[in-house]
Amino acid sequence: MNENNQLPVDVVVMAAGKGTRMKSRLPKVLHRLAGVPLVQHVLNTAAQLNARSAVVITGHGADQVEPVLLAPGQALAVQCVRQEPQLGTGHAVQQAVPVLGDDGVVVILSGDVPLTQADTLQALIGQCDGQRLALLTLDMADPTGYGRILREGDAVNAIVEHKDASDAQRQIQEVYSGIMAVPARLLKGWLGRIGNQNAQGEYYLTDVVKLAVADGLPVVAHKINDALQVAGVNSPVQLAELECAHQHRQAIQFMEQGVRLKDPARFDLRGQLVCAQDVEIDVNCIFEGQVSLGEGVKIGANCVIANCTIEAGAVIHPFTHIDGEKLGVTVGEGALIGPFARLRPGAQLGAEVHIGNFVEVKNSTLAKGAKANHLAYLGDATVGERVNYGAGSITANYDGANKHRTVIEADVHIGSNCVLVAPVTIGAGGTVGGGSTITKSTEPGALSVARGKQVSIANWTRPQKKPKA
Amino acid sequence: MNENNQLPVDVVVMAAGKGTRMKSRLPKVLHRLAGVPLVQHVLNTAAQLNARSAVVITGHGADQVEPVLLAPGQALAVQCVRQEPQLGTGHAVQQAVPVLGDDGVVVILSGDVPLTQADTLQALIGQCDGQRLALLTLDMADPTGYGRILREGDAVNAIVEHKDASDAQRQIQEVYSGIMAVPARLLKGWLGRIGNQNAQGEYYLTDVVKLAVADGLPVVAHKINDALQVAGVNSPVQLAELECAHQHRQAIQFMEQGVRLKDPARFDLRGQLVCAQDVEIDVNCIFEGQVSLGEGVKIGANCVIANCTIEAGAVIHPFTHIDGEKLGVTVGEGALIGPFARLRPGAQLGAEVHIGNFVEVKNSTLAKGAKANHLAYLGDATVGERVNYGAGSITANYDGANKHRTVIEADVHIGSNCVLVAPVTIGAGGTVGGGSTITKSTEPGALSVARGKQVSIANWTRPQKKPKA
Amino acid sequence: MNENNQLPVDVVVMAAGKGTRMKSRLPKVLHRLAGVPLVQHVLNTAAQLNARSAVVITGHGADQVEPVLLAPGQALAVQCVRQEPQLGTGHAVQQAVPVLGDDGVVVILSGDVPLTQADTLQALIGQCDGQRLALLTLDMADPTGYGRILREGDAVNAIVEHKDASDAQRQIQEVYSGIMAVPARLLKGWLGRIGNQNAQGEYYLTDVVKLAVADGLPVVAHKINDALQVAGVNSPVQLAELECAHQHRQAIQFMEQGVRLKDPARFDLRGQLVCAQDVEIDVNCIFEGQVSLGEGVKIGANCVIANCTIEAGAVIHPFTHIDGEKLGVTVGEGALIGPFARLRPGAQLGAEVHIGNFVEVKNSTLAKGAKANHLAYLGDATVGERVNYGAGSITANYDGANKHRTVIEADVHIGSNCVLVAPVTIGAGGTVGGGSTITKSTEPGALSVARGKQVSIANWTRPQKKPKA
Repeated sequence: MNENNQLPVDVVVMAAGKGTRMKSRLPKVLHRLAGVPLVQHVLNTAAQLNARSAVVITGHGADQVEPVLLAPGQALAVQCVRQEPQLGTGHAVQQAVPVLGDDGVVVILSGDVPLTQADTLQALIGQCDGQRLALLTLDMADPTGYGRILREGDAVNAIVEHKDASDAQRQIQEVYSGIMAVPARLLKGWLGRIGNQNAQGEYYLTDVVKLAVADGLPVVAHKINDALQVAGVNSPVQLAELECAHQHRQAIQFMEQGVRLKDPARFDLRGQLVCAQDVEIDVNCIFEGQVSLGEGVKIGANCVIANCTIEAGAVIHPFTHIDGEKLGVTVGEGALIGPFARLRPGAQLGAEVHIGNFVEVKNSTLAKGAKANHLAYLGDATVGERVNYGAGSITANYDGANKHRTVIEADVHIGSNCVLVAPVTIGAGGTVGGGSTITKSTEPGALSVARGKQVSIANWTRPQKKPKA
Repeated sequence: MNENNQLPVDVVVMAAGKGTRMKSRLPKVLHRLAGVPLVQHVLNTAAQLNARSAVVITGHGADQVEPVLLAPGQALAVQCVRQEPQLGTGHAVQQAVPVLGDDGVVVILSGDVPLTQADTLQALIGQCDGQRLALLTLDMADPTGYGRILREGDAVNAIVEHKDASDAQRQIQEVYSGIMAVPARLLKGWLGRIGNQNAQGEYYLTDVVKLAVADGLPVVAHKINDALQVAGVNSPVQLAELECAHQHRQAIQFMEQGVRLKDPARFDLRGQLVCAQDVEIDVNCIFEGQVSLGEGVKIGANCVIANCTIEAGAVIHPFTHIDGEKLGVTVGEGALIGPFARLRPGAQLGAEVHIGNFVEVKNSTLAKGAKANHLAYLGDATVGERVNYGAGSITANYDGANKHRTVIEADVHIGSNCVLVAPVTIGAGGTVGGGSTITKSTEPGALSVARGKQVSIANWTRPQKKPKA
Repeated sequence: MNENNQLPVDVVVMAAGKGTRMKSRLPKVLHRLAGVPLVQHVLNTAAQLNARSAVVITGHGADQVEPVLLAPGQALAVQCVRQEPQLGTGHAVQQAVPVLGDDGVVVILSGDVPLTQADTLQALIGQCDGQRLALLTLDMADPTGYGRILREGDAVNAIVEHKDASDAQRQIQEVYSGIMAVPARLLKGWLGRIGNQNAQGEYYLTDVVKLAVADGLPVVAHKINDALQVAGVNSPVQLAELECAHQHRQAIQFMEQGVRLKDPARFDLRGQLVCAQDVEIDVNCIFEGQVSLGEGVKIGANCVIANCTIEAGAVIHPFTHIDGEKLGVTVGEGALIGPFARLRPGAQLGAEVHIGNFVEVKNSTLAKGAKANHLAYLGDATVGERVNYGAGSITANYDGANKHRTVIEADVHIGSNCVLVAPVTIGAGGTVGGGSTITKSTEPGALSVARGKQVSIANWTRPQKKPKA
């Protein structure tokens, strides 16, 4: 976008409000939709516009909001300006004047309106055309309570508040969304002239419409029908409504790309998901962070999958929990995972690896064809090709103070309920007998056993149930 | 309620019907909505009215219904009266006459109409005002099949059945709900005059309207628009509809209090849930019994949580199953639980305790900072502060006849795949080596090991795959 | 059906299309709805009609489609005929002419229209009556884009495409569904006369209507209102819509039989489910393959249940995964399973067996009253009555090459974290001490122990945390 020689775009994001109805200690704009703070959705959209900068007006909870906005990783330059006290929307934007260039177009957005699409704003900026005040408006079936757009021909004449509207005006279904695009130099001029001679004693940004009309400057509107794009979040109920609507739209988009979702009403994506061809996702799965699914990958029901790459043909059975956090997780081609498996950061599984039920893998590399199918823990381990890691076996990677590494070379067979006390290496092709606790490294090809001798006491009398006191 | 000097209230609950369409051996009124029998919802509402007593008319399945009604714990005095044979609604209420005082107002309710709200009934009782027959009525968009309310001005003239109604009467959208409030002395008089001269040979309670009008006594109506409050359950389909509608209302109420639900359509509460500020609940969670969530508690997706207290800042990861049943479960401040954890009755976890994947805790106390992160069982154990309980370790609390206690004192480190054979105490600061079976108590600070010596057979030939027979 | 001496029925199924919008390597008709390929739904419906044969017209992806159609187990005789190149629907049916008898009625169906009901087709065949062209039509609220049915009285005059329709014709809400029934000898005659003199140069099957009218033969219609029955699948979005609608209908049917579903929107059946009286199924359960639930069975939330028989009174707790695949699974009367249990093929559990959390059972028989309640693996085992199988215990059934059997006789008590190295037998009434690895069979009544002696090192200094490099 922004490719057709238009003026630079600066966005102003209103984020000073208290959000009382959220009933939360968290400032409203930090509440999350699809896993991302509301205000960050707005900044992400601004970045898609190739905006030159974003000025965020903070106020309530600024100490919490600003560190989030100023954290590394923003795709565009972000500045925070505090509004204290809060004397209305016009006053809010006035705070941004000192840091806004005169040469650009300013787009006014709200930090609690997360789902505006970049192409909508681009069209609004097109309407502004570097010289006009352009309002984003919405056609509503029931506009009761909203400010109506009065037009004369195509041009906008005024915004009239519901309470001030005549019966005829109340028939108008076009309402103001709260979003506008305006040349910076015009905006700055008007902001200086907005008064607070009203019942609330506040400075209203919408007064710029009157000023523009008074100046004989054109006011235009870009009208949309999609209420979701301009819906604000004022309460947990509204947040949940937007979450569900947004999730549904995401689900439809994935299906249109060819992803097969069993039930789009039970699909949650809170991050970025990339799917190759013929991916199937069963009901009630959640994806978080960065997830990539290769061709033909099947995700069973009730999986939680975060920050991982799953390669072609892998099958993730139901009730699998994967979260790679910062280290990531890789599941190799044709691997079979779950049910009831957990893959933690640094699990790097090669092709055709099998991880079965009640198995946890953390910070471990498993080479092609290795298997840990039952009730096991692999942590800080390097596991060779074709290793069979027995049911109930554990790598004791933590001595109470430090973590150590276990190396299991190719073709090793580890029996059931073993403990491999790291640091230790099991040599290639070796076997560890069931129930063994291995504390010393073993030679390739060796059978290693560490367990007690089996003894029996004949005709043993088992303890008897004591009578209750 | 009942504070403004009104007459005592007695409720009569119709619960004698067979409920054939339920196709169940369980009497209809014992089917559960939100985990509570339908008839109990009605009694709970009556208790909110501060009703003096409830008389439940039983019949079909009375042997199953009455013990439930008469079990300890009812918040108001409940009597059961049998209706045998069942000769209509008027006949049903006639059975209650001997046990109803003459001095009160009688509210007639149905045991299969679970969601009437107390404030609605209070308003109805207000309409009755100790001297009038008051009907609860409902405005329906499509009243086809229902008895219409005929009014003359505000007063009710008659209830006319759909089949008997004229075309003009069928345009009336106000219908009778089946619920009425009436002074006991009037009710008793009218009940004695109801006849059964009709096609079915039954005694109809609605005939009291005719009798009141004939007596020149006023009949009034309290009209609502909320069909859910007067919806009855006659089939599993209707039960599921009411369950979903009720769950949705509960979800909205929690969100209005500030609780953040990711998806109100995937939230189920079957009991009492108390939430402090800033509680977050992910999709597909179920709450049962008495559950209390402290400030900032986060509940991950797909959890089943029953009968427990979770203190501030604790995080419950996905796929966690908690049920305290009668003993309860406590999860301390800042604790981290799951994924795939199970907490059973008597699990008392202190602050910052960590319980990880595939770990079960039953009837055990864990002090601050204790951790059991992987594939472990703690039963009948007392675990001190900062204990690290290794992967795969088990408290052998059951000798086949009796349960015994394991004590693990502060700062102990238990290795992997250990068995602690109760009764046994591991002294403070001690260490148990991985793979050890501990049968005798250990001294503070000691390292205890009980395992076989590691031996190896070099160049061992592993068994070969046998040819299939 | 087909009992009233009507002509034999042959179905022709159109299955040659590419399904580009599916964006899949899998041919469209092999995509699955409720676990069954779309085209197989159509064949199953044909089988319910007692059709004499089905002729499937294949084309795109025929190499994948035909093996599925011709696999053993079809309930009616299926033939595949290839259409190459694909020159329209008329051309498609022309390919079937050589293999269709002259004596029957041909029903033309689409392989991507899965939910047509057999009784609808039976009614259509009744309209055909062995001598007429009968069209299945649908009344649509918004028929835009569909071919309208022009009638003269009851008889059909023509199908007019939307783009060719006059304004008056566009008011018609009755549209052609794509399904027809027609006597074979008439069909064959008309197919020979269909031309391709149109913009696309294709042969249109709907031209038979014109030919019938031209021949003075009656064309009739069987009209339905249920769009789902004639809805086709052209994209993953449509597939998901049909899946959800179909699942909802199935849910309603089960509830009408008396099954109590907590939430019909979170119930998925992909196969055959048989429920006795008073079955309760909590939210978010999935059933696959052949599943039978006995009287009073309770299925907890979030279970995945496939290919198994669960007998009366058994309770399946949440998060249980059962899949019997080819061997099946049986859960006995009054058994308690889960939460977090996994039953795999060949698990045969007797009455009152308890399988608890993080327990896996595979190819094993457990007799009445046996229990494995915590973190355990039972594979290739025969377990006697009342056996108590301890937490963390494992049957080591695999020596790296072959599987062996473990026999645990009645009344045995296996301690915690044991390994039973198969082949091995634990004699009746015996006890195995916790932490033992048992490699030799034991005598009845004996106490068997195989573990190291417990030793302690006093005042042991645990490793210290190393400074980070």
